[in-house]
Amino acid sequence: MKKLINDPKAVVNESVEGFGLAHADLVTVHTDPLFVVRKDAPVQGKVGLVSGGGSGHEPLHAGYVGRGMLDAAVPGAVFTSPTPDQILPATTAVNGGAGVLHIVKNYTGDVLNFETAAELAAAEGVEVRSVLVNDDVAVEDSLYTAGRRGVGGTVFVERIAGAAAERGDDLEAVTAVAQRVIDNVRSMGAALAPSTVPHAGVPSFDLAEDEIEIGIGIHGEPGRHRIAMENADGITTRLLEPITADLNLGSGDRVLLMVNGMGGSPASELYIVYRKAVALLKERGVTVERSLVGNYITALEMEGASLTVLKLDDEMITLWDSPVSTAALRWGV
Amino acid sequence: MKKLINDPKAVVNESVEGFGLAHADLVTVHTDPLFVVRKDAPVQGKVGLVSGGGSGHEPLHAGYVGRGMLDAAVPGAVFTSPTPDQILPATTAVNGGAGVLHIVKNYTGDVLNFETAAELAAAEGVEVRSVLVNDDVAVEDSLYTAGRRGVGGTVFVERIAGAAAERGDDLEAVTAVAQRVIDNVRSMGAALAPSTVPHAGVPSFDLAEDEIEIGIGIHGEPGRHRIAMENADGITTRLLEPITADLNLGSGDRVLLMVNGMGGSPASELYIVYRKAVALLKERGVTVERSLVGNYITALEMEGASLTVLKLDDEMITLWDSPVSTAALRWGV
Repeated sequence: MKKLINDPKAVVNESVEGFGLAHADLVTVHTDPLFVVRKDAPVQGKVGLVSGGGSGHEPLHAGYVGRGMLDAAVPGAVFTSPTPDQILPATTAVNGGAGVLHIVKNYTGDVLNFETAAELAAAEGVEVRSVLVNDDVAVEDSLYTAGRRGVGGTVFVERIAGAAAERGDDLEAVTAVAQRVIDNVRSMGAALAPSTVPHAGVPSFDLAEDEIEIGIGIHGEPGRHRIAMENADGITTRLLEPITADLNLGSGDRVLLMVNGMGGSPASELYIVYRKAVALLKERGVTVERSLVGNYITALEMEGASLTVLKLDDEMITLWDSPVSTAALRWGV
Repeated sequence: MKKLINDPKAVVNESVEGFGLAHADLVTVHTDPLFVVRKDAPVQGKVGLVSGGGSGHEPLHAGYVGRGMLDAAVPGAVFTSPTPDQILPATTAVNGGAGVLHIVKNYTGDVLNFETAAELAAAEGVEVRSVLVNDDVAVEDSLYTAGRRGVGGTVFVERIAGAAAERGDDLEAVTAVAQRVIDNVRSMGAALAPSTVPHAGVPSFDLAEDEIEIGIGIHGEPGRHRIAMENADGITTRLLEPITADLNLGSGDRVLLMVNGMGGSPASELYIVYRKAVALLKERGVTVERSLVGNYITALEMEGASLTVLKLDDEMITLWDSPVSTAALRWGV
């Protein structure tokens, strides 16, 4: 294992410390327990947004803390859920009196620990709602999940719900728009090569030299099937078809499309995937209204890509376009 | 070789096509010959900025086309200089009557081909100046270079000169500030694992399982030496020391620091490097005034990182902070 790290046990703490130094204009890093909050938290009268999960998916979630997106991110160990004693102080730290929304990816540990933290926060008088992101169409149940896994759609939920909170929507309205995004977003990914969790020291799974995994999870959980290596257009078609079928996308629909890199694939390849995805959607009469191409939810240095498609309505577009200022997404400011 | 590509010979064309589709609000892609220009080019009365080079270093250069940075980017084949017949039409396309600055990385092919294009443009009545970026302190001469190679400093030159052009500086002033950045910027990189050029199909070089290359070039050219794997703090120290020595950095100096990923290393590792680099600079009394952490000048999917340090003055900070709107750098708009 060759990595730019020091002690494998210190990876998350040192990385988040560096993140805090690099983005001191946007965030404050709390250690012991570890969580990251927006510089001006709590914003009085604004609904607070908290998300979190295992580390190794950067820029998710700390990269999305800032104006128009998250108020706090709670990083667990690599590929491991954060604990309630991290989530609770993050929740109370961003409570500006209008309540807090937990945005939770559907993994059993995350679900349990956010639930516990929400109960503890409620006992302290903080009103907490929760939404569960489960956008991965690849498999129904998975290694760490009952039901569908939460993956790339999380970025869209955090952004659009964050924009709603920023304009002053109340907790019920912010929760509703977050749920509307979840109801209309689907994802699927493929791996060309695995990644290595620092404290494990060996790759999370094996792939033969001519083999890829279609429907991979962001922790290397098994997907739908392993196939012989295909070209980019073929892989893109395999990823997009289950998404469009599940969303029942057709003529006249407008979408937000993300081509996401898993961490180890070059940007040039992601744009080749994007080119094909746009063409396939166009064939169906679907318009790509907005898009993201890049590393937005990764699996350490895994090679591969995922597609995320959100069926848009006018309000979602307005919220998407509103100003956002975070380490990983920034426009309008 | 497993890559998200179709025909290896079509990689650059398809990738740039996808880039143009994803960023149609910012750029126009010209094919045959291939070059990318800012959507509103030529901007009348503004100095035009053109850069380019071999592909495989994305987001450099097309990702930096837009307001406050480049007017045109000219992508060559992977790790291969663009030709004069691409550079010439890119140059004339962005000439708004105030002349054009060529920002050239110091590789023999780039230097020759930009020179030829500049002569041809001059024959067509376009005033062209040129600056040569040679910021890599690792080695004096290299595989494709007489003198020092041009690497990460290019991003800073493009941004700061682009800002000067945007505010209306004339060709002489824009050239002068570009040269001032070059005079004050230094870089050095390290590779943990090589990348594979699509049309070659095999890794550009070999590294043993416990070996890294200090001073690597962005095409995998040999660096200073190969050493046994070290931890992040050790590698960071080895990269930063030659830079600070060459810049003669000391107490009271202010710098712009970039920790750049080579394409295949996760963001979490780059922040661990950043953390150490800031600490080392602080020990010398040097203040990190601004910073970038991420994949800004890559070598396909190479694993590793580079450091770039620019000794700042007040004007450079003002220019750096001014609005920029490109695919890869955006703030203030």
